[in-house]
Amino acid sequence: MSRLFMFEKPLGMRDTLPELYEKKHQVRSSIADTMKLWGYQFIETPTLEYYETVGAASAILDAQLFKLLDKEGHTLVLRPEMTTPIARVAASKLLNEDLPVRLAYSANVYRAQQREGGRPAEFEQIGVEYLNDNTVSCDGETIALLISSLKKAGLSEFQVSIGHVGFSQELFMQILGTNGRATALRKFLYEKNYVGYRESVQSFNLSSIDKQRLLKLLQLRGGEEVIEFALDVIENDKGKQAITELQELWDVIKDYGVEEHVKFDFSIVSHMSYYSGILFEVYAGNVGFPIGNGGRYSLLEKFGKNATATGFAVRLDMLLEAMGGGQTETTGHCILFSQERRKEAFELARKLHEEGTRTVLQDITGVKDIDAFTKKFADTTFLIGGGQR
Amino acid sequence: MSRLFMFEKPLGMRDTLPELYEKKHQVRSSIADTMKLWGYQFIETPTLEYYETVGAASAILDAQLFKLLDKEGHTLVLRPEMTTPIARVAASKLLNEDLPVRLAYSANVYRAQQREGGRPAEFEQIGVEYLNDNTVSCDGETIALLISSLKKAGLSEFQVSIGHVGFSQELFMQILGTNGRATALRKFLYEKNYVGYRESVQSFNLSSIDKQRLLKLLQLRGGEEVIEFALDVIENDKGKQAITELQELWDVIKDYGVEEHVKFDFSIVSHMSYYSGILFEVYAGNVGFPIGNGGRYSLLEKFGKNATATGFAVRLDMLLEAMGGGQTETTGHCILFSQERRKEAFELARKLHEEGTRTVLQDITGVKDIDAFTKKFADTTFLIGGGQR
Repeated sequence: MSRLFMFEKPLGMRDTLPELYEKKHQVRSSIADTMKLWGYQFIETPTLEYYETVGAASAILDAQLFKLLDKEGHTLVLRPEMTTPIARVAASKLLNEDLPVRLAYSANVYRAQQREGGRPAEFEQIGVEYLNDNTVSCDGETIALLISSLKKAGLSEFQVSIGHVGFSQELFMQILGTNGRATALRKFLYEKNYVGYRESVQSFNLSSIDKQRLLKLLQLRGGEEVIEFALDVIENDKGKQAITELQELWDVIKDYGVEEHVKFDFSIVSHMSYYSGILFEVYAGNVGFPIGNGGRYSLLEKFGKNATATGFAVRLDMLLEAMGGGQTETTGHCILFSQERRKEAFELARKLHEEGTRTVLQDITGVKDIDAFTKKFADTTFLIGGGQR
Repeated sequence: MSRLFMFEKPLGMRDTLPELYEKKHQVRSSIADTMKLWGYQFIETPTLEYYETVGAASAILDAQLFKLLDKEGHTLVLRPEMTTPIARVAASKLLNEDLPVRLAYSANVYRAQQREGGRPAEFEQIGVEYLNDNTVSCDGETIALLISSLKKAGLSEFQVSIGHVGFSQELFMQILGTNGRATALRKFLYEKNYVGYRESVQSFNLSSIDKQRLLKLLQLRGGEEVIEFALDVIENDKGKQAITELQELWDVIKDYGVEEHVKFDFSIVSHMSYYSGILFEVYAGNVGFPIGNGGRYSLLEKFGKNATATGFAVRLDMLLEAMGGGQTETTGHCILFSQERRKEAFELARKLHEEGTRTVLQDITGVKDIDAFTKKFADTTFLIGGGQR
């Protein structure tokens, strides 16, 4: 291979070196343990799925899919998210009894990048899907579990913003009808481009009352008090129904005692077309992107099941960024040995391993620079020749 | 999507449902913990690599590679194994100090299947690479670690067979020269087709002494005593050097006290062209395929480093097959609640979670068949209406 090309990785692909790997592992384990305690069962699905089955249903932009052809000419995709594969598995194998099902996953997902912009094309999501239970308790449980998981992972400062897909939908429908202006506004909201939203609203040929109602959407953020304001903005039953659901959800969240981490944000929208109820996003630290998100969705219908579900996914890379860099420590023990005392070295290492002490056994003839090597450990035992140093 | 196609997965792709997932997780954790105790550091590499960098170097058959094109027309592959990506990372980032480096990984690898034959196209390998240390202690450590890892995972009956790439190579070179007959014999050995090997040897135009030497290769299996027999079969220095290395390795293995799990097998060969020293395979139970394998290799040279390494990989699916099915138990607690007692239910669940008891909280209005649902748990607490059942 050419020397220049030798160490290159494809666009957006990353190596995870030991220090970051260990942090990622600890955070993943804390979250997974919490999910298991709450009764969620982990499953794994394949990296490759048929485009027709999962790729098309997943609502990720086609240009972001990694596609390839199998031997028979079918298009395969690297899974762009986990909700759709889990809906496939659940609908085919786990929902036959028509009971609530709690599933969890931690998996890499793949979204092709168009140009190098520092965004990873492969990243890990850890999440849950609580399927076939349409109660507000189900919605509340996923939010309480999300909060509990993040706390267990060691994140203390974060905010879950909750909205409802039905609210802005009904507001736009009522004021703008079904035309493209609603799509334009939704795009501004998704991109959190509130200046663009405002300018766009002002440019519309609408009564000033209707413009005010559209602009008020951006102010519907905060605690329980926002519910009252929201009732003033929307008039039709479907819109009011969305508010009632959020009101009930707030009561559940209060019963969990986690309301300090929650606020309403009626302007939340999603680019995932399968959401059908509440929507939520988690923000933390200075990360300019949600570290997690979720909501209630109707995706199971695409797989022949008349059921909805609520789920969330946390992006491990974003979460680690929000948590900041921890201290790295020189840890573990090293035993440097020469052949004469090899057996003694092995016996000492076995003892230390049994005690749970990370211990490296190193033949001294395999090391050129002894000082540089032993510096990597908290302490070193020398079992060399006839004596002990 | 068409109903028939709805639940299909690409050829060789599998879902891992909760029960198997949990077993896999436990086995992976035991092995990973052992590797960490011995001082190995885990890293992760991307699923996609450039064909020119990793695909071509990996020595996996081209027809087995999943290939795709990126936006710039470069060919990408789904990594078919982990040794080559780790060599890439190590050579570019971790070997600058010229010290021994101990790395570990657990990762899915991808090998396209030509037809449905029950073989997975995606499977998990857990393994180590001990780089830049050419001592026999390094070889011995990887074998002792392999044995310790398998024991910790719960496997008791298994056999590590050790050979040396140099032995059969020198034997074939000496008797057959460089012609295609050596390649044919090597293929029989790789496929463990000893009948084919014997017939092929008999068909060659060779002296009966040379035929006997080639046939004797199949008998060079067993304990320390095989070393003597091997010295009778090979005549040249390089071949004798391979035997000496194995003799020294045996002494290291005895110092570790793990020789009961080890035997020699001079007929082991590999289809990986990068091996340059010892080779080994692990067999267990009735699994007709090695559950793990490894050896010393010179792959780092392809990435510009003048160093060798020894590593092994265990296939988790094969290991689980060798361990057989364990018992599955109905575990955990369930709290079925109605809205009136929701807060009480949440408080009880929090207490149980803090005690480490897997506890599901279920709103009773979300369940159609209460008996079917509660049957899934070891016990259930009902917090319904005004009373307690």
